[in-house]
Amino acid sequence: MNLPISFLSDFGRDDEFVGVVHGVIARIAPEVRVIDVGHEFAQGDIRGGALALMRAIQYLPQGVALAVIDPTVGTERRPIAVRTEWGVFIGPDNGLLAPAVAMVGGTDAVVLLDNPELKLPTPGETFHGRDLFGPAAAVIASGQADFEELGSELDPDSLVPLMLPLVEHEDGAVVGEVLWVDHFGNAQLNITPEDLQLVGVQRGGDIVLKIASAEFAIDWVASYGDVEEGEGLLHVDSYGQIAVAVRDGSAIDSYPLDTGTAVTIRSGRPTLQITSG
Amino acid sequence: MNLPISFLSDFGRDDEFVGVVHGVIARIAPEVRVIDVGHEFAQGDIRGGALALMRAIQYLPQGVALAVIDPTVGTERRPIAVRTEWGVFIGPDNGLLAPAVAMVGGTDAVVLLDNPELKLPTPGETFHGRDLFGPAAAVIASGQADFEELGSELDPDSLVPLMLPLVEHEDGAVVGEVLWVDHFGNAQLNITPEDLQLVGVQRGGDIVLKIASAEFAIDWVASYGDVEEGEGLLHVDSYGQIAVAVRDGSAIDSYPLDTGTAVTIRSGRPTLQITSG
Amino acid sequence: MNLPISFLSDFGRDDEFVGVVHGVIARIAPEVRVIDVGHEFAQGDIRGGALALMRAIQYLPQGVALAVIDPTVGTERRPIAVRTEWGVFIGPDNGLLAPAVAMVGGTDAVVLLDNPELKLPTPGETFHGRDLFGPAAAVIASGQADFEELGSELDPDSLVPLMLPLVEHEDGAVVGEVLWVDHFGNAQLNITPEDLQLVGVQRGGDIVLKIASAEFAIDWVASYGDVEEGEGLLHVDSYGQIAVAVRDGSAIDSYPLDTGTAVTIRSGRPTLQITSG
Repeated sequence: MNLPISFLSDFGRDDEFVGVVHGVIARIAPEVRVIDVGHEFAQGDIRGGALALMRAIQYLPQGVALAVIDPTVGTERRPIAVRTEWGVFIGPDNGLLAPAVAMVGGTDAVVLLDNPELKLPTPGETFHGRDLFGPAAAVIASGQADFEELGSELDPDSLVPLMLPLVEHEDGAVVGEVLWVDHFGNAQLNITPEDLQLVGVQRGGDIVLKIASAEFAIDWVASYGDVEEGEGLLHVDSYGQIAVAVRDGSAIDSYPLDTGTAVTIRSGRPTLQITSG
Repeated sequence: MNLPISFLSDFGRDDEFVGVVHGVIARIAPEVRVIDVGHEFAQGDIRGGALALMRAIQYLPQGVALAVIDPTVGTERRPIAVRTEWGVFIGPDNGLLAPAVAMVGGTDAVVLLDNPELKLPTPGETFHGRDLFGPAAAVIASGQADFEELGSELDPDSLVPLMLPLVEHEDGAVVGEVLWVDHFGNAQLNITPEDLQLVGVQRGGDIVLKIASAEFAIDWVASYGDVEEGEGLLHVDSYGQIAVAVRDGSAIDSYPLDTGTAVTIRSGRPTLQITSG
Repeated sequence: MNLPISFLSDFGRDDEFVGVVHGVIARIAPEVRVIDVGHEFAQGDIRGGALALMRAIQYLPQGVALAVIDPTVGTERRPIAVRTEWGVFIGPDNGLLAPAVAMVGGTDAVVLLDNPELKLPTPGETFHGRDLFGPAAAVIASGQADFEELGSELDPDSLVPLMLPLVEHEDGAVVGEVLWVDHFGNAQLNITPEDLQLVGVQRGGDIVLKIASAEFAIDWVASYGDVEEGEGLLHVDSYGQIAVAVRDGSAIDSYPLDTGTAVTIRSGRPTLQITSG
């Protein structure tokens, strides 16, 4: 029995780090397949990696998720494995795994990776992806170890959570923020279609997108093809979230948006803005 | 029977898009191997991706080619599968597949990917790589579906072509353009050795490379080693096209060249250029 | 019998080069797995690639190492295969393979890749990764050829070495240089813990890091967690070398360091530096 490993990190591709982790896994478990989910998340961007893993998890084959964005490696943060119905998540206990674990229904067992037989003998304490997490993923994926053999039991409630921004509904408006700007410049919000419907914002109606003090009239449509080239739009993106996009363009080039930018969406037309000379 | 899938896109590597498509394929067809042809083509650069797929196709194992550079996803462009002697090409009908299909001898059958069972249930219409093209590639590669089951038959003659610039022969000169600037700064032209021979330009003779109004003396040699370090050259590149290169250097740093730049090659020496003060 | 191939190059990811080499290998040896060690080394950076392969080799599964950083392709440099206890190294004879070969105990046999049956028929002489090295790796990894069949025997002593900077011990100080700056901005030195101990520099003592004429007080600690956030440190990195790092930061942002920068480490405190106005 060999389960696939889905591997995400902030190691980048300019060094041999990703390849070395693949190598370590292949030495321990030659038949296990490794799928690279992504390795170019910003250095130490736990939130960005956690959101990506959460978005991806339902599309990844059940097995092992190996996730290493670990800016506090070499300090007291805990290396862990988390058992879920989807499979086993392995990585640092810094919030990186939490959203994806929640997405697949939560966990019934967590262990600290403190089994000394698991760890590669190594001079330093800075490359746990190679020396600890990779080997743990390999032995679980290949069935060479049971989950409990990875180390000491931990209280699942002790896991470090990832704090995500909540949406607020106020006065017929929804206030949220940009969760993620993708490769194409689309800005995914933490706002869902249900949030908009709750405050009466509907497809086909007049809608205002407010960013700081600037207000923009914008349409909520089914897809890019429903607006003209170069025009902005709101739509339900491929993950079910409301996103700001521009047909044949980039939302972040057309609007003052970036990851974390606060946005307000309401029905109506932009307030007349008088600029006196 | 499991055929390999060769996968090309403009998804970039900074998000989880490529990994998610790998995941979707692995869930449907766990034994199918996926070869990444490249994912960092410029966003929406259909021509760049089409030329890369055309150059690569004869070196890729027969099976399935999954190509997704799809700037008009969410509009009326057609998702298609194209059957050839090489195997099955899957992607948007926007010209991306056409040169590679022609390279392997053309097609005898094309279908529209409109079989509703094929598509993943999904909130949005913007990630056909994950929701439609990836699943189609997976079921074909693993033999879970026949080509005809993917959807409705289309007229092969209705496919969107890719317009490529033609070479002109005039007055002992060949006029062409830069098709592709590679990672090392080499500039591949749409000019072949046969084009040059037709107008009497020969290896060993005096040759002029004209770019806009600038003329450069240049040698046509077998390989880099035939000129001095830092010197420019014309040679037949590894795909059989004439390319401008610089030994231990970059053609685009040494000459005013970029993708699409018009160039003229003729026999002779550069015209004396008098600059008066 | 199919051995894995570990593949390293400077081909970058913006073209289809890496994918095409995967394709060539898959056509010849469909069951062979290819591990990408890294492809984004600087163009022609033989030293950078050689050091990465040396660092990686003990973590890669025994089999075939295919390494192509080959700025003088198309000149007289020799294409070679090198047999070692680890497996077979394939690439150009320009120093790229030498440190990794030495790391695994040296070689007992080297061949020139001049068997004409090995090489793909091809128009140019500039893509040996695709036309020569990749096919050689594929036939060896899949057992379709014996090592001796790859070509003519060469004298192992004739291999081009890679010159690496030596450490000097002088007056209670060690003088070395930065071997490698990694993705996270850590600066690995060519200095080992043993070098420091030889001149009396010890963990817990006062230590000076001198870069050009600037002197910095710095602690030699076990790991990042032993200093405050934003503070610099010396530590034994995950490869056993002394490295300059910054907790939650980047050594090259905090110190005037880059690959090749000379550094001196000694016991004591920084010399008082008086700047007169």
